[in-house]
Amino acid sequence: MNGAVSMIQTLVNGGIDTCFTNPGTSEMHFVAAVDRVDGMRTILCLFEGVCTGAADGYARMMGKPATTLLHLGPGLGNAYANAHNARKGHTPMINIVGEHATWHLEHNAPLTTDIEATAAPISDWVRTIRTAADVPADTAAAIVVAMQPPGQVATLILPGDCAWNESVAPSPAPPMPIPAKFDAAAVDNAAQILQRGEPTILFMEGIAMQEEGARLASRIANATGARIMGRTSNARIARGAGRAIVETQPYVVAQALDSLAGTKHIIHVGPSGPPVAFFGYPDKPSIMAPPDCEYHRLAHLNEDTLGALEALADAVNAPPEPAAIYERVLPPLPTGSLDAAKVWATVAHNMPEQTILVNEAITSRFGSEKFMAGAPPYDELTITGGSIGIGLPLSVGAAVACPDRKVINMQADGSAMYTVQGLWTMARERLDVTTVLFNNSAYAILQHELENVGAEAIGPKAEAMLDLGDPEINWVKIAEGLGVPATRVRTAEEFNKQFPRDLNEKGPRLIEVMI
Amino acid sequence: MNGAVSMIQTLVNGGIDTCFTNPGTSEMHFVAAVDRVDGMRTILCLFEGVCTGAADGYARMMGKPATTLLHLGPGLGNAYANAHNARKGHTPMINIVGEHATWHLEHNAPLTTDIEATAAPISDWVRTIRTAADVPADTAAAIVVAMQPPGQVATLILPGDCAWNESVAPSPAPPMPIPAKFDAAAVDNAAQILQRGEPTILFMEGIAMQEEGARLASRIANATGARIMGRTSNARIARGAGRAIVETQPYVVAQALDSLAGTKHIIHVGPSGPPVAFFGYPDKPSIMAPPDCEYHRLAHLNEDTLGALEALADAVNAPPEPAAIYERVLPPLPTGSLDAAKVWATVAHNMPEQTILVNEAITSRFGSEKFMAGAPPYDELTITGGSIGIGLPLSVGAAVACPDRKVINMQADGSAMYTVQGLWTMARERLDVTTVLFNNSAYAILQHELENVGAEAIGPKAEAMLDLGDPEINWVKIAEGLGVPATRVRTAEEFNKQFPRDLNEKGPRLIEVMI
Repeated sequence: MNGAVSMIQTLVNGGIDTCFTNPGTSEMHFVAAVDRVDGMRTILCLFEGVCTGAADGYARMMGKPATTLLHLGPGLGNAYANAHNARKGHTPMINIVGEHATWHLEHNAPLTTDIEATAAPISDWVRTIRTAADVPADTAAAIVVAMQPPGQVATLILPGDCAWNESVAPSPAPPMPIPAKFDAAAVDNAAQILQRGEPTILFMEGIAMQEEGARLASRIANATGARIMGRTSNARIARGAGRAIVETQPYVVAQALDSLAGTKHIIHVGPSGPPVAFFGYPDKPSIMAPPDCEYHRLAHLNEDTLGALEALADAVNAPPEPAAIYERVLPPLPTGSLDAAKVWATVAHNMPEQTILVNEAITSRFGSEKFMAGAPPYDELTITGGSIGIGLPLSVGAAVACPDRKVINMQADGSAMYTVQGLWTMARERLDVTTVLFNNSAYAILQHELENVGAEAIGPKAEAMLDLGDPEINWVKIAEGLGVPATRVRTAEEFNKQFPRDLNEKGPRLIEVMI
Repeated sequence: MNGAVSMIQTLVNGGIDTCFTNPGTSEMHFVAAVDRVDGMRTILCLFEGVCTGAADGYARMMGKPATTLLHLGPGLGNAYANAHNARKGHTPMINIVGEHATWHLEHNAPLTTDIEATAAPISDWVRTIRTAADVPADTAAAIVVAMQPPGQVATLILPGDCAWNESVAPSPAPPMPIPAKFDAAAVDNAAQILQRGEPTILFMEGIAMQEEGARLASRIANATGARIMGRTSNARIARGAGRAIVETQPYVVAQALDSLAGTKHIIHVGPSGPPVAFFGYPDKPSIMAPPDCEYHRLAHLNEDTLGALEALADAVNAPPEPAAIYERVLPPLPTGSLDAAKVWATVAHNMPEQTILVNEAITSRFGSEKFMAGAPPYDELTITGGSIGIGLPLSVGAAVACPDRKVINMQADGSAMYTVQGLWTMARERLDVTTVLFNNSAYAILQHELENVGAEAIGPKAEAMLDLGDPEINWVKIAEGLGVPATRVRTAEEFNKQFPRDLNEKGPRLIEVMI
């Protein structure tokens, strides 16, 4: 068998069965090989940022990597932003990047570029395959790297001749890495800190933010009075009725400083550093906790975080009940003209249990908390690396991973535009995603940020750079053009009527909300 | 004044007056500063690949750089593919990439990434500004680098605090670099080779492919019997009635090998290496010329190529007439069902003089030569780096550069999707671009390439990866959604009627041609 067949069989042997693809000429042997191996699902995306964003959403829900298939350096460039988000969120991912045949590289053909250098900033591991015989071992190595807890981005570069030349037998499933043991001394130390009764935050990231971790942390809070807080954005967070309430660090610096004021101890349950601001601003600090705050580690992200939380709960004699849980409260349906908060009220009112809520609403998420607190249990996925343009792709990946769960994508307009091609893949794969598109015709977050950075009085050119209203974008037409049925609503009553109707459909829908 | 103001004033002083922007928080001081300096036009793009592609189109027509304004590493990632194309085409370009405040970097905020490493593969020069006081000198240095003949990509990284802190006075216009002198000995050598009468090709790139260079080369051909040939894809090429006929290297390897068979000498007028295949294929060579072909240099790209051609024309006593010129021939208007060739016939029939023809038709360009040979004089811009998704952005930039010339964008559908956001900027800036969108609902080039690489019998999954027909994409809706009036045509008669109607409008139009 050739290298491409051996690679795909090695992936399947290792449990990797989904590939988000945007191939070109140098990937044609991989493409030809997918029909010669059982068990690899290939999902075509029309832009590479959709591939990496979808692989991210898939892995957040499945706990194992998908692969992407990308075309040389420029294909990887297009995939960069969402690979960055994945890496920052510790998502397991395997990027397979085609490369010129090894002997063609020296001729500097138009598409020749330094793929390894391009991959390095967005990858935990990069390897270029040297010969077809190396394909299975290198592929197995990529699987192991990606599965290294908590999850890593592995980029494997496949030259054309390594794909088409005769290779060797596929590798069997490699032994999968498991989380490192937690440190018992760190647990003892954390318990001692908590028992002092000083203002303490359990600062959490990764699996600690999912249902079991949040519940353990909340039980600890119940025993000790500690607060539990996650980062502003999280790969996956358990929310809704019955789940433990976990704060998240406010995005706005003044609010974060207020929230963290007086904190004496921060115990890291995952994070490797203090709570920091998203951006640096003139005359504002980078670290959101007070200067005299002390930092302690319960567990690193690569350690058995849930085990550490369980041990800590025991050490502080935590009761079985969490400190506070969300209660199912059906918010009243809003009326009148629409704003973002009203949209969230209707969403919370109607969303089914076990919804996967992809949240790239950006400024339109402000005000959502009070309504979503009363929602049925759901998982929320947000942008981990700050690079907008992930909502549609994340939704693709989550829907591929969980075909029996509804995906609701709360989507800002400016962000959606970067990876608008994701709508087509939703239509092609009949994915069960309802996208609520907030059309505010602006980069509204930047209107806030222009003030936050203290930029002086704004002139017309600056204003124009934050305005998406000329011409007005019609998302209904764009969605329909890409094969997704869509409607536009302008009032709460219209949204109240349309949203449940779309939820009842099995397949992609988009509602453009004019706010 | 702060660093941002000093930067913009330095750019304007250096003749740089156009900025294609997609800013984020870290660029807000730059955004605020554009109203405080006279003479910088800012053009908002909704995806960074549009910024770099537009800057490329602008520079190809203006011979000087535009700047882009990009948001951190992920923004540069999104800009990568078209920056790659620009670099391969030796386009002058200045990318300004915002970065976190210098003191914020150590905290590894979500958007932190290695911007210099990201920029390196697509830049001839990368510099991170260290302090606000360095801004004007570093900006002037970037201008000089970009203008270094034949043109370079300079990437200048601007940390937030360097933008907002007090800076020093803007730099005056830097002394602009000029092409190096050509080598008289190289001219003598080329003349001797040509006078041997052996099969010889003048292999050309860069400015030699524009009107004056092509005419000089053709006069040399007239005197010596040499062939003149450019690369498959060229930054800018002069075509149409009255212009000298220049061959281009065929894309398909078998055709290129046929075309170059028997060649004894290749004289480089720009290129630094032999004619090579776009990709490496099993059992096919990388170099398209025969193994015993000898290579000679007339001029490097950074040298005064036109001067060298002129000297060579004198040395071989070239007559004033070129060997062959294109004649204006009005092709008959086609009838019946549409195919790509018929579309080109109608285009050649109707296009106005001095059209800028952006050609990303990919497989739909096959068969166009016989019709375009009879077109009125025009400039053609193609993909120099092989990374598809450049047609819409190139058209934006060319139309910004040349508001009095019609831009016709011959556009493949699969390629258009990568940078579809370019349509919105056309609408916003009322750019005079008529896009002819070939909807063949496939990555048709890959259907060819699957055969070319010798991949075995194709299965249904492989076929699906080359098919864009499920769901069918409706480009009329997409264009209208982005503010560009559009129509769909299915017959030659419909296209014959619609195309001149759209050309008569001043502003963007799209015609979706179902083939």
